Amino acid sequence: MKKAQYTQRGPVPQDVIEAVEFQTPPLSAGQVLIEVLAAPINPSDVLTLTGEYGLLPPLPAVGGNEGVGRIAELGPEVTQLKVGQTVLLPIQGGSWATHMVGTAKHLIALPGGADPKQLAMITINPPTALLMLSEFVDLQPGDWVIQNAANSAVGTYLIQIAKSRGLRTINVVRRESAVEAVRAAGADVVLVDGDDLGKRAREAADKAPIKLGIDAVGGVSTQHIAQSLGEGGIVVNYGAMSGEACSISPASFVFRDVSLRGFWLSRWFQQASPARRAEVFGEIAQRVASGQLQARVQATYGLDQIKDAVAAAAAGERDGKILILPNGPV
Amino acid sequence: MKKAQYTQRGPVPQDVIEAVEFQTPPLSAGQVLIEVLAAPINPSDVLTLTGEYGLLPPLPAVGGNEGVGRIAELGPEVTQLKVGQTVLLPIQGGSWATHMVGTAKHLIALPGGADPKQLAMITINPPTALLMLSEFVDLQPGDWVIQNAANSAVGTYLIQIAKSRGLRTINVVRRESAVEAVRAAGADVVLVDGDDLGKRAREAADKAPIKLGIDAVGGVSTQHIAQSLGEGGIVVNYGAMSGEACSISPASFVFRDVSLRGFWLSRWFQQASPARRAEVFGEIAQRVASGQLQARVQATYGLDQIKDAVAAAAAGERDGKILILPNGPV
Repeated sequence: MKKAQYTQRGPVPQDVIEAVEFQTPPLSAGQVLIEVLAAPINPSDVLTLTGEYGLLPPLPAVGGNEGVGRIAELGPEVTQLKVGQTVLLPIQGGSWATHMVGTAKHLIALPGGADPKQLAMITINPPTALLMLSEFVDLQPGDWVIQNAANSAVGTYLIQIAKSRGLRTINVVRRESAVEAVRAAGADVVLVDGDDLGKRAREAADKAPIKLGIDAVGGVSTQHIAQSLGEGGIVVNYGAMSGEACSISPASFVFRDVSLRGFWLSRWFQQASPARRAEVFGEIAQRVASGQLQARVQATYGLDQIKDAVAAAAAGERDGKILILPNGPV
Repeated sequence: MKKAQYTQRGPVPQDVIEAVEFQTPPLSAGQVLIEVLAAPINPSDVLTLTGEYGLLPPLPAVGGNEGVGRIAELGPEVTQLKVGQTVLLPIQGGSWATHMVGTAKHLIALPGGADPKQLAMITINPPTALLMLSEFVDLQPGDWVIQNAANSAVGTYLIQIAKSRGLRTINVVRRESAVEAVRAAGADVVLVDGDDLGKRAREAADKAPIKLGIDAVGGVSTQHIAQSLGEGGIVVNYGAMSGEACSISPASFVFRDVSLRGFWLSRWFQQASPARRAEVFGEIAQRVASGQLQARVQATYGLDQIKDAVAAAAAGERDGKILILPNGPV
């Protein structure tokens, strides 16, 4: 058994992580051994390695916060699961490993026929996209939304969820080469970022006020999103791919009543009722299993290539998610 | 009769304005002639001359948006006012003039014994301070508020209003020489801005979460205010004295649920009910007349010195408001 462990944090994330051998302890009553099929590297995982994330686990720690696996062995008194069944990995973290031990009654079983690579990504990015469309502005079919980082996984899910709700999306990317993939995902409009984005976005929406702006870039890109919005619009930030603070001119806040909020899935998890969580994840799991919701995968790596995988995830200009397949191809 | 008129806007505000002779037309039924006693130069007036404000009057225009005057002559059919009575100037703008014509039934009579210089400033800055303390966060006695530009007129009124409500204020200034005046206005804590402001402010509040931050500076100063706030705190921006866009790191929005809003008195005027407007201005007029609310005056100028007056108002590092006294000392 192997896991990708780090004993310190540092500015170059691939430098602090490495694959090490380990053994799981014998299973206690109610526990199961899970063979990990696929686990993604999310931007939040990279920020956890560099120490920039809002929650940091005690060291040493194993990387990874979501993924999908297969039941390999049942401990005593487990009756609700079977060997071979596909499950979401436990949410305590440490999914970059060949094996994890989980508590049977907390595990969520998944449809066996669906693509494990797509199922591995459902816990973090799809609810982020879904909730940013739901929790800030009461959007109606026909309404416009603008987002940047539109070729990210969250951006791709957001396009698909918006489309299913009859919303129209203006999608902003930083380079011409990313336009086609975003269009193929179902975008209504794709624009390359720039100082005149606000003007081009308002023209694209044909004078209908854009009510919600989604920002994962920061810096002047936040300002460009704010300038696209109609009076009273809300900018929701969920990331800082530029590495810069969000910038918005007071003229946007003061004269046009635009406001700026943040979204963090961890907080929503803590605050949402169990019924609301079940509703959100039920919708997502069903749509991923049916193929309606999917994200691009740029490359897959084994656990021994964890340094290369993290370096690829931390680099800019990706065209899909980086996935770890700890037990080989799925 | 003279008025301070501009026929174009430009980056150097004192270059576009000048005092010109004029004559008021004969009074119609219901009108009165008002002799202007005092009218301030607010930051919004300077931004109106440079063209950076959110509402710009058609050209040519007369400067000034508030002030106080004395009834000099009654037109036909005016029964509710008397010659010599003190009134707030009409809100249609153009208060930098020796005389204005107003509609008697729209004028608000003021107590005769109060200082006209203080009364001249009550329409814009005091309601801005009062409403920023009321409209965004439900503050209770003992709660902490932090503001920058604390030695401005709005900042001074905010300290006085907060104190009367049992709120505690942390006041941020950009230079040591401004500390004493802010302390004298009733500040609980005065700090000089800097990169460690958040830490010093949280210590000053003795770990009580600061719920509301008021920003009139922009740039990194917005970030400093945001870093001072507790989880879920709100930054309200009402100006950009630094000339820079507001900067806030996504970590503040995302991990600490801080949000950023804007306040514009003009919008509040449009949206508030007549009863709410009367309540707010009734409270303010009573407190100014009794001397509980007052702002510092740095210098007064005659109408012929309008260029010098505007240059002084546009310069940084003031220690009080610039007032125009169009008919000489009051």
